[in-house]
Amino acid sequence: MQKSAQHISALHLPSQLQLNRAGNLQHFLGIEGLSCAHLTKILDTAETFLGENGRILNNPLLAGRTVMNLFFEPSTRTRTTFEVAAQRLSANVLNIDIQRSSTSKGETLRDTLWNLEAMTADVFVVRHSASGAAHFMAQSVCPKVAIINAGDGRHAHPTQAMLDMLTIRRHAGRPFSELTIAIIGDIKHSRVARSDIQALQTLGAKEVRIIAPKTLLPTGFETFGVKVFENMDQGVAGCDVVISLRIQNERIASPLLASSDEFYKLYGLSEARLKLANPNALVMHPGPMNRGVEIASSVADGPQSLILKQVNYGIAVRMAVLSLAMQGQLEAREMQA
Amino acid sequence: MQKSAQHISALHLPSQLQLNRAGNLQHFLGIEGLSCAHLTKILDTAETFLGENGRILNNPLLAGRTVMNLFFEPSTRTRTTFEVAAQRLSANVLNIDIQRSSTSKGETLRDTLWNLEAMTADVFVVRHSASGAAHFMAQSVCPKVAIINAGDGRHAHPTQAMLDMLTIRRHAGRPFSELTIAIIGDIKHSRVARSDIQALQTLGAKEVRIIAPKTLLPTGFETFGVKVFENMDQGVAGCDVVISLRIQNERIASPLLASSDEFYKLYGLSEARLKLANPNALVMHPGPMNRGVEIASSVADGPQSLILKQVNYGIAVRMAVLSLAMQGQLEAREMQA
Amino acid sequence: MQKSAQHISALHLPSQLQLNRAGNLQHFLGIEGLSCAHLTKILDTAETFLGENGRILNNPLLAGRTVMNLFFEPSTRTRTTFEVAAQRLSANVLNIDIQRSSTSKGETLRDTLWNLEAMTADVFVVRHSASGAAHFMAQSVCPKVAIINAGDGRHAHPTQAMLDMLTIRRHAGRPFSELTIAIIGDIKHSRVARSDIQALQTLGAKEVRIIAPKTLLPTGFETFGVKVFENMDQGVAGCDVVISLRIQNERIASPLLASSDEFYKLYGLSEARLKLANPNALVMHPGPMNRGVEIASSVADGPQSLILKQVNYGIAVRMAVLSLAMQGQLEAREMQA
Repeated sequence: MQKSAQHISALHLPSQLQLNRAGNLQHFLGIEGLSCAHLTKILDTAETFLGENGRILNNPLLAGRTVMNLFFEPSTRTRTTFEVAAQRLSANVLNIDIQRSSTSKGETLRDTLWNLEAMTADVFVVRHSASGAAHFMAQSVCPKVAIINAGDGRHAHPTQAMLDMLTIRRHAGRPFSELTIAIIGDIKHSRVARSDIQALQTLGAKEVRIIAPKTLLPTGFETFGVKVFENMDQGVAGCDVVISLRIQNERIASPLLASSDEFYKLYGLSEARLKLANPNALVMHPGPMNRGVEIASSVADGPQSLILKQVNYGIAVRMAVLSLAMQGQLEAREMQA
Repeated sequence: MQKSAQHISALHLPSQLQLNRAGNLQHFLGIEGLSCAHLTKILDTAETFLGENGRILNNPLLAGRTVMNLFFEPSTRTRTTFEVAAQRLSANVLNIDIQRSSTSKGETLRDTLWNLEAMTADVFVVRHSASGAAHFMAQSVCPKVAIINAGDGRHAHPTQAMLDMLTIRRHAGRPFSELTIAIIGDIKHSRVARSDIQALQTLGAKEVRIIAPKTLLPTGFETFGVKVFENMDQGVAGCDVVISLRIQNERIASPLLASSDEFYKLYGLSEARLKLANPNALVMHPGPMNRGVEIASSVADGPQSLILKQVNYGIAVRMAVLSLAMQGQLEAREMQA
Repeated sequence: MQKSAQHISALHLPSQLQLNRAGNLQHFLGIEGLSCAHLTKILDTAETFLGENGRILNNPLLAGRTVMNLFFEPSTRTRTTFEVAAQRLSANVLNIDIQRSSTSKGETLRDTLWNLEAMTADVFVVRHSASGAAHFMAQSVCPKVAIINAGDGRHAHPTQAMLDMLTIRRHAGRPFSELTIAIIGDIKHSRVARSDIQALQTLGAKEVRIIAPKTLLPTGFETFGVKVFENMDQGVAGCDVVISLRIQNERIASPLLASSDEFYKLYGLSEARLKLANPNALVMHPGPMNRGVEIASSVADGPQSLILKQVNYGIAVRMAVLSLAMQGQLEAREMQA
């Protein structure tokens, strides 16, 4: 399984980088390199933070620890989820205005990061437009700070993948090995798609499908162990989970897709199309949604939609990843001492 | 009393919207719809947070709760007071950069709010340039989040009104029923004026006066149960409390008021004018002040001025409103369960 | 000693301003006016926060207190260190966007500060481009708020000086009275240089040297009790500590220093030059560094470099200054009561 997951990465990042010598997480950089047991532990830990009715149970696992959000690329939404998660773990949280910080004074990024580490950062939550940025930090700059990848380039968005997995595990009513999942839309530019595919394969999903026009599909995807569909009706048929991806307007303007109306007609998740999937198929979307473009409003707000549950579980998953990586760092320190 | 208060609103917002089924606050949207008992409970709760010499007594009433500041319109001053108040209640506080958040990616405001709610927000503190924005959120978007109105358009600024009431109650030495209060200046554009008038009437003030040039007075104000004066000397005579309002420079430029000197001559609160009021009349201003325009520096800094006390009491009032609305939300959740 | 320190200041700020009647710190504005005992107490207090391996020991000395960062001049780095320090003392911290706050609405700075004080600020951390700004606040605006100078104009950067002193004290292996320290580079524009010289003299350093081209040296520096060198090789010879200062690019462009290569040739701290100093001489830099301009990369990252230790100690020093000034303010309040 892990083998096919490794196919996906064009980066060939060292897969053991995020584990300490005991084999536990000390960074959380991507899905690749993690076993089914690792992913399951993250999901199980996240479950411990879930109370009733969408309530999150606080836990002071990071009390006295300093979490720094380093967002080289703005993302209010993702940053906020990490900020909430860190606060609920009683951490001290700092949002570093990394673009206005010393790098603008001619300091190298490496020096900036070393300085932040010396200011006693325990965790860096990193969002960067370059693929592999978080890996680079963990490998070459600050291995003793727990690095959490909050999205890098088109490469990975592993916490989003894990919250998707938690959503599926809690609501599908059957194990991954019995589930067929379709991911629809802009696969080419989506870090979510890559991470979701890897996570689903690692967790042993029965079948992972990709539904996209050729223009939004990277070449060679057939070799990744997924089934590719250009026709949405065919792709959705028989699915247990349907994950609709966000499409950015500027990507619609192509010879094939003249407008967002056109996109909706071909790939929009309408009520009619959803009926082609299995009864009670789960509907998911990583947000922010373009209602009426990739998904119908009635589906987004309908009884099968888990879109807001995903956001809620995202807090628990980020709490899990933050606390597990911190614990793995402490283990690593002790092993070295 | 409440009747006359309702006259003021041009919005006719549902007055019971902010109460749970037990009749307690679960949002704090405006003064209208609240009884004298409601306002008194807010003031009494605020008193419990006041120590000696302007010290605020911390109370962990919101420990583990998440308060999100949603300022659609910038206001460092008001946002800071809410941030301090929430921190002193041990809440986790997040300032959401709502203008840079997902709405800029084509997401609807409703989706953004639902997402923030799903990130386990307990309280939204909302500042918006549109009248009724906070009401709309409480009614139609996030009724389960405690919504606190931190100022909406020209409509209301209810926490400012409540801190004004607390200031008067603590310093006037007599009950509201024996007090004559004058509000001076730019009534037309002031959300403070509207909320103050409603609160004073609800608390049973003897007489509320408005002193303003015709250009800064909305039409039909005479029907609101207030006495209107165009001549400041006449309006101030016999008052126990004088509330000077901020005037914005661009509003002075009118046929009647050629300059800020002119405004000061006609409506500035000078030492001479203050002498026309009752002895030891209280001087108040919501800030930020234009010294020498609406108020003389010597009056602002003089022995009758309570301007900085207002700011201080503002922390206690916001702590009261935050904790009461949170409590009302918890009651509402239990009533539904 | 203190005498010579006073020479340096062109401002002649009242030296007792930062002490309460018991002679303890109640503000931290600058090194001048403080005795060797005061500086030693700061260093001793900072040591209590230092654990093993660069770990900082938290201490809830500021629990329930409100620290406001007022950065009139942006400095992500310094602001972050104060934010971390305050969090590790369990304070509530607010970053006030002082440029966007009410001063932009025509409010005077004095009124803005009074308002923030009334919002129950206990500590202001102030960074300002004007020399004496923090002194002015402590003397004339908010004497009851503990004012911490986080850098004012070219005048002072006293917390940087204290972290430099802590670094030297912990690593030199000998008392200050046996140490020769050289400060190299842009003395003219450096608030660090001024504060370092004062602190070293107050702590009784054997010899303080300044190494700089004439264009980067204020006139009359010879009278400050320091030895001035224009030739770097001569200046470095026999030193125990070498402090390289940051130079800004726009200041290199002068008749004498045509380029950064030229600057490096004359004043760059290379491996060869460092060998002219005493064996195991300590290498320091306040950051952010221009590698290859004022310091060679191999020296910055070499075994004698304490540059990242400085950053780490900076957290402990800021915790010390914050907690001591707060304690002095509380003493002052009690003395007045």
